[in-house]
Amino acid sequence: MLFADRLALAVRKSGSITCVGLDPRKAQLPAPLRDSVVNDSADEWAAAYTQFCTEIIDVVAGKVACVKPQAAFFEQLGPAGMVALGQVIQYAKKAGLLVITDGKRNDIGSTATAYADGYLGETSPWGSDSLTVSPYLGEDSLEPFVDMCDKRAAGIFVLVKTSNPGGGLLQDRVTDGQTVYQRVAELVTEFNSSRLGESGYGPVGTVVGATYPEQLAKLRQAMPGSWILVPGFGAQGGGAADVLVGLDEDGLGAVVNSSRHIIFAHAREEYRQRFGDARWQDAVAEATTEMNAQLRR
Amino acid sequence: MLFADRLALAVRKSGSITCVGLDPRKAQLPAPLRDSVVNDSADEWAAAYTQFCTEIIDVVAGKVACVKPQAAFFEQLGPAGMVALGQVIQYAKKAGLLVITDGKRNDIGSTATAYADGYLGETSPWGSDSLTVSPYLGEDSLEPFVDMCDKRAAGIFVLVKTSNPGGGLLQDRVTDGQTVYQRVAELVTEFNSSRLGESGYGPVGTVVGATYPEQLAKLRQAMPGSWILVPGFGAQGGGAADVLVGLDEDGLGAVVNSSRHIIFAHAREEYRQRFGDARWQDAVAEATTEMNAQLRR
Repeated sequence: MLFADRLALAVRKSGSITCVGLDPRKAQLPAPLRDSVVNDSADEWAAAYTQFCTEIIDVVAGKVACVKPQAAFFEQLGPAGMVALGQVIQYAKKAGLLVITDGKRNDIGSTATAYADGYLGETSPWGSDSLTVSPYLGEDSLEPFVDMCDKRAAGIFVLVKTSNPGGGLLQDRVTDGQTVYQRVAELVTEFNSSRLGESGYGPVGTVVGATYPEQLAKLRQAMPGSWILVPGFGAQGGGAADVLVGLDEDGLGAVVNSSRHIIFAHAREEYRQRFGDARWQDAVAEATTEMNAQLRR
Repeated sequence: MLFADRLALAVRKSGSITCVGLDPRKAQLPAPLRDSVVNDSADEWAAAYTQFCTEIIDVVAGKVACVKPQAAFFEQLGPAGMVALGQVIQYAKKAGLLVITDGKRNDIGSTATAYADGYLGETSPWGSDSLTVSPYLGEDSLEPFVDMCDKRAAGIFVLVKTSNPGGGLLQDRVTDGQTVYQRVAELVTEFNSSRLGESGYGPVGTVVGATYPEQLAKLRQAMPGSWILVPGFGAQGGGAADVLVGLDEDGLGAVVNSSRHIIFAHAREEYRQRFGDARWQDAVAEATTEMNAQLRR
């Protein structure tokens, strides 16, 4: 089944548009996991990251549409972290979750092909369902990824309008009445036009921050065939009303990511008192239920 | 010593502005290395990549300013490839070569910090001297990298004007008389202004393709404090006259990358006849000498 259709199915089956961001960070791991690291070695931290993420997956499987491991945090640990990333991706897939690997990769020509093959290809060491991709290098840098989507029924999410304050520096620049991010949106729509699945969506998703609800609503109209990954919900300030404008009439077309707010829920005052670090998994479960409820309209 | 000054010293000592791109690809490795892979395993290919790159380093050390391993090709092999990347970086540094890791990484806030720490930090598993970075996410996405440059006397190379045909799609868009890539150049100049070393250059380098000589000449003027990494020489079509406009009056300020033309020189007709696959290292040596001669003015 095409990636876009699998994502639609995942949203329908789970009744949730939540995407859980798997962003393990040493200092914020629950105490039992931090304490398991004795010698401060990369192998130990990688094992702790794997345990942390797989336990989160156990909790959220069936309750959310997808998970988004952030490559940077695994990569920070070196090769041992990259092994952990692969384990987490495989574990999530076995648990029935779709995986968006957040790598914001790209390059030109055959180098882009190497990234596409590396993360999405038949013999990929990571075997992700999809990958986030940066558009600064233009349309020919995206083509190898789109080709790989065709070949492997995979997906990509192209950065369009990011949630950070500085995102506007280049993305909001206007040429002939069209911003840079609108030009990227147009390109994405072109790529998807001949590739729409039964769900009405194509393989080329986009990233549009929850911190720009007006633009998100307009982009929903401008990119009818693109799944939108919406980061910035919760910790970064976007609320439910801000992100629900990313949905189509059937409640499809957007998944909303939360990382810290869910995975480090044990550190939030309301959960800390109830669960402490020892029952951090219960805090994850509650935070997931809470986010699902907020996003149900 | 600051990265920019170390690069100036490397150019002066070697008498070369050549950067050798380390882009190992399975199909193009010389026959002796391809033949060393019996079971088609990632570990075997990673070992072949390490051997290929370290032998190239043996040949070019002292003859060129720096090397640029392309992360994508190592990453394509999975964690084993990332181990090889680390070995290649360390080997190059021990051989006295500066290393530009070509990852075109970036993300927002603390995730960008994770990439900066991962590739350039004190406990980095790769310990590169510098990293290529994508600017689409704006100034606050670059700050964590610049902070790391300050902390570790490291460097970055920000994509400004890339060498591929599609690069213009976003980069050439004009707002108020200024293109997107010129806006990035302006930002880079701001970052460098308070960070110039004895060489007159700062830690924030840039990437400007050899395929756009007019723009390169103008960018040389617009970014007086930025080392320019110029890809696209040779195989991609840029010639010597096209890239020498990237230099300042003292012959500093730019390094010119060649990957295929040097590392796969054994496959070029003129060298194939003389050296064959068996003496591929001699082809690398000759191609390096040839490129240095072309770039000497």
